Amino acid sequence: MSGTSSAGRLIGVGVGPGDPELLTLKAARALGEADVVAYFAKRGNGSHARAIAHPHFRAGAVELPLDYPVTTELHRHDDGYRSQITDFYDASARLVAEHLDAGRRVAVLSEGDPLFYGSYMHLHVRLAAHYATEVIPGVTGMSGCWSQAGAPIAQGDDVLSVLPGTLDEAELARRLAEADAAVIMKVGRNLPKIRRALATAGRLERALYVERGTMQGGGCVPLAGRGEEAAPYFAIVLVPGWNMRARSGAEAEG
Amino acid sequence: MSGTSSAGRLIGVGVGPGDPELLTLKAARALGEADVVAYFAKRGNGSHARAIAHPHFRAGAVELPLDYPVTTELHRHDDGYRSQITDFYDASARLVAEHLDAGRRVAVLSEGDPLFYGSYMHLHVRLAAHYATEVIPGVTGMSGCWSQAGAPIAQGDDVLSVLPGTLDEAELARRLAEADAAVIMKVGRNLPKIRRALATAGRLERALYVERGTMQGGGCVPLAGRGEEAAPYFAIVLVPGWNMRARSGAEAEG
Repeated sequence: MSGTSSAGRLIGVGVGPGDPELLTLKAARALGEADVVAYFAKRGNGSHARAIAHPHFRAGAVELPLDYPVTTELHRHDDGYRSQITDFYDASARLVAEHLDAGRRVAVLSEGDPLFYGSYMHLHVRLAAHYATEVIPGVTGMSGCWSQAGAPIAQGDDVLSVLPGTLDEAELARRLAEADAAVIMKVGRNLPKIRRALATAGRLERALYVERGTMQGGGCVPLAGRGEEAAPYFAIVLVPGWNMRARSGAEAEG
Repeated sequence: MSGTSSAGRLIGVGVGPGDPELLTLKAARALGEADVVAYFAKRGNGSHARAIAHPHFRAGAVELPLDYPVTTELHRHDDGYRSQITDFYDASARLVAEHLDAGRRVAVLSEGDPLFYGSYMHLHVRLAAHYATEVIPGVTGMSGCWSQAGAPIAQGDDVLSVLPGTLDEAELARRLAEADAAVIMKVGRNLPKIRRALATAGRLERALYVERGTMQGGGCVPLAGRGEEAAPYFAIVLVPGWNMRARSGAEAEG
């Protein structure tokens, strides 16, 4: 992985929240110039990022799918899982580095924004110190969600907290109560706990549940009115801040 | 402002963080289809958003600049300021509504993302209930900043807090200490206080100061090494979370 001045260029490309039109002009150009396009994928599941970006690949570009190891029997906090996933990211970085050493431009796709909870970061920390690197930001999944919901999320002096749904219930409730606005990621099986924490924090009435954001078939409903059916891992809960204050405050009296 | 089915369409358009190429394909299309393009501007100062978006306006589009009232002698928390700015947003919404009532498509520009601390929100809350409305998300200023800095901001179960630099010092320090990653907005004259709060929270060494993000002449430096010269209002301070943990943690050992 030793870089030289004749080596290639690593480009982290944010492809946005799902709607193929929410790709930036810069991302489209970078894809058209890339010799190699790499992306993480779950075996058999394809890659959303590739589906969004594919129309912009140049003819003859090499595709480098990086298939996650199958770890369904291991818990995420298990040492075996950690070691297996670390080995996988190391091996993925070596595959990308081979192309960089050959002087190629390698675009690595990332849903949303590459440096905001994106898998691209695992390659970035391994390669950016050794190769010329550029990161093209993208529209985040959360921006896609609140835009589709038409929900002004934060304004003025609002504090916005981005919280993982994996926090324990009391911690989640405390942090929700302290924020003007919040985004809860990694909903999935944490939804019943998230709902209770929102109720404790007095935020349940304001909460919106968003599934698949700006993707086809995606949508947004008030969480309080949603049933208890299972939620996918990538669902998001939004707690808009400003909208609510605006209705009672003088500044935004419409 | 009464809407009818034959009325026009309000489109909040995020133009991204400054680099004209960080506009989305969808924003470019919406601008090309708009009859009227409205934007907030400071008198004599022009509009960054207009400069980014202008190449995409269709020939003959009507421009509707909404010039902020001159309020330099009033403090932001002063009742006179609040009333003047509320009157201004009301009047701006009426100007936009006239075009909507005439059946026109009105694009309202917003730097960054329209519903994330954007001025478009003041029109949205006044008009969205009365007219067909669409919001096109954009790359936020903070994404532009951390991408330019190449600084992975948050990963996995990280808590990310977006904090206004206007919070008092103790509150800022407490919230910084509790977050894995943070973005501090509205830096300006609050910079000395922000620096002290970061030091108290043990986060000063990790903090990056970003001025003008992805705009021409913009850049990023470690805050600890920056002098005490005045900072502009729109400067941002980033406290990356994951990067630091990655260097000591097993998962991202590169």
